[in-house]
Amino acid sequence: MTEWERGDVRVPHIAMGEGGEFDTIRSLLSQWGTLAAGIGDDAAVFTPPDGEQLVFSTDTSREGVHFLAGWLTPEEVGARAAAAAFSDVAAMGARALAVLVALDVPESWREQLPRVAAGIGHVVHEADARIIGGNISRSDSFGLTLTVIGSTPAPVRRVGAREGDALWITGRLGGPGLALAQLQRGEAPGSEVRTRFARPMPRLREGSWLAAVGAHAMIDISDGLAADAAHLATASGVVCELWGDAIPRVANASVEDALASGEEYELLVATAPDMDADGFARRFGVPLTQIGVVRSVVPGETARVVLTHGDAGLVAARVDLPAGHDHFSE
Amino acid sequence: MTEWERGDVRVPHIAMGEGGEFDTIRSLLSQWGTLAAGIGDDAAVFTPPDGEQLVFSTDTSREGVHFLAGWLTPEEVGARAAAAAFSDVAAMGARALAVLVALDVPESWREQLPRVAAGIGHVVHEADARIIGGNISRSDSFGLTLTVIGSTPAPVRRVGAREGDALWITGRLGGPGLALAQLQRGEAPGSEVRTRFARPMPRLREGSWLAAVGAHAMIDISDGLAADAAHLATASGVVCELWGDAIPRVANASVEDALASGEEYELLVATAPDMDADGFARRFGVPLTQIGVVRSVVPGETARVVLTHGDAGLVAARVDLPAGHDHFSE
Repeated sequence: MTEWERGDVRVPHIAMGEGGEFDTIRSLLSQWGTLAAGIGDDAAVFTPPDGEQLVFSTDTSREGVHFLAGWLTPEEVGARAAAAAFSDVAAMGARALAVLVALDVPESWREQLPRVAAGIGHVVHEADARIIGGNISRSDSFGLTLTVIGSTPAPVRRVGAREGDALWITGRLGGPGLALAQLQRGEAPGSEVRTRFARPMPRLREGSWLAAVGAHAMIDISDGLAADAAHLATASGVVCELWGDAIPRVANASVEDALASGEEYELLVATAPDMDADGFARRFGVPLTQIGVVRSVVPGETARVVLTHGDAGLVAARVDLPAGHDHFSE
Repeated sequence: MTEWERGDVRVPHIAMGEGGEFDTIRSLLSQWGTLAAGIGDDAAVFTPPDGEQLVFSTDTSREGVHFLAGWLTPEEVGARAAAAAFSDVAAMGARALAVLVALDVPESWREQLPRVAAGIGHVVHEADARIIGGNISRSDSFGLTLTVIGSTPAPVRRVGAREGDALWITGRLGGPGLALAQLQRGEAPGSEVRTRFARPMPRLREGSWLAAVGAHAMIDISDGLAADAAHLATASGVVCELWGDAIPRVANASVEDALASGEEYELLVATAPDMDADGFARRFGVPLTQIGVVRSVVPGETARVVLTHGDAGLVAARVDLPAGHDHFSE
């Protein structure tokens, strides 16, 4: 019986019987070792941290929708799905505590499951979280739905950006979009953009730090900077003015690429202007770059994103910006 | 902006922008009304009840695996998936607080979504829970993955059944199995068994009550009584002796039907023998029937289920019992 120790809390797995489904679960647990805790009951038991709020996010990655099998190794499929799910917790400024893993498994993926599990395990380990439950079900297409549980004294929401705030972005944008375009053309992406696409990093430590220093509003870049800035603007009821030329980009990415590239899992954050960006970069080895400002809406104006290209002052209404990913656009 | 009031906690939804995906979410929210709370941020924010442990369970229902579209109305698809997910929380003796709804939606299901949402909403309402987040993704097949959050002062696990315990079952078994067999033969099930299949009830109030009066171990019947009793026996390291003739059954169900029928969502519970079953039935309008006893394993014996048919004393080893549902049996 595998046991997990955290402080003096020991959470043994439940003894499971015979059968293919349990054999599959045992193969996953053997892959995860002490990263998994208390598996095998009807529900996972969890003692919430005293005095903190919890955050929950559920996120699905499906073959044929979010990736094609030939684009990623099975480890990358698992790690990328986990990064996407953990990123939503990072965007609340919370630390990740635990995750539930629901797997939809066609016969053709059965043998790959331990490798997918290893990829999930890497991200769970990096996040110092634990796998506390899940579900396995047959399916025609391979899919993972990960539900992440995090905690924080004070969640940072999309609501809260205000007149005079500075807008910052972690990291450099454009990589996943370039990689995706190359993969769709049947080309092999270069190493930097491929890594950004295949093995994105959820900015958990960065998000917690930004929350602790007083971030007003935050969102992760999953639909693309333009679309996610619009989400933040709409939620906060403000105008986000983005300085196109200031957006940090990977090599060969245009401003338009950086605005449209989704699944970045970088953080867009609104703060008071006096942010210690140099200190952030020293601490995390990741740049924090001011890419715009927040202003109030004027009478008759709607909350939106306005793009300016440096001195040229090119202004585009939100509808002119490259669209982000919308699962149900026609 | 819809708001939700519970005590003095108000959790407004986040303002969302334009686009097909947000229109879809808005159509779900309009269906759910005050049953949904705080939708639209990167993650749902949740304040855990003081001094209680949380339980989490995630469960998937997929067209073609767990049901065929013609068997159920869209409302029943939603309600049945929600019942299955809430049942795992009931089996821990916990009350249900909140749920996250991840939807995999093929184009052919788009117009049915509000009806599926209505079915989910009925169960969430009956459980006095709230919908606090979710995910929508395209897919080839329709699927729902529901993650339920519950709380309890003391969870009841599969571990804990002991020598001398009585084994009890809520309700009457066999209905879903009979309905499924008829549907697979292209016949229309009768009203009682169809309802048991299409609109099962998670035994949340019953599970909380059983926990409060000191249940030692509990499990919900999702794989079938024989298989789930074996799960409980294995987890607790005991022998569960089931009295075949005592198992309460719906009309036309044999003992074998009652042992094999899955997706019942009744509760199997091990308690001290002095349980007030009549009081239970009066309180909940559902029978609680003793169907066996727990005994220790003898040296050389493994934890298992033994079936006895009343006086005839027919004893079957666990491997002789009807198998429950295993997603990965060959």
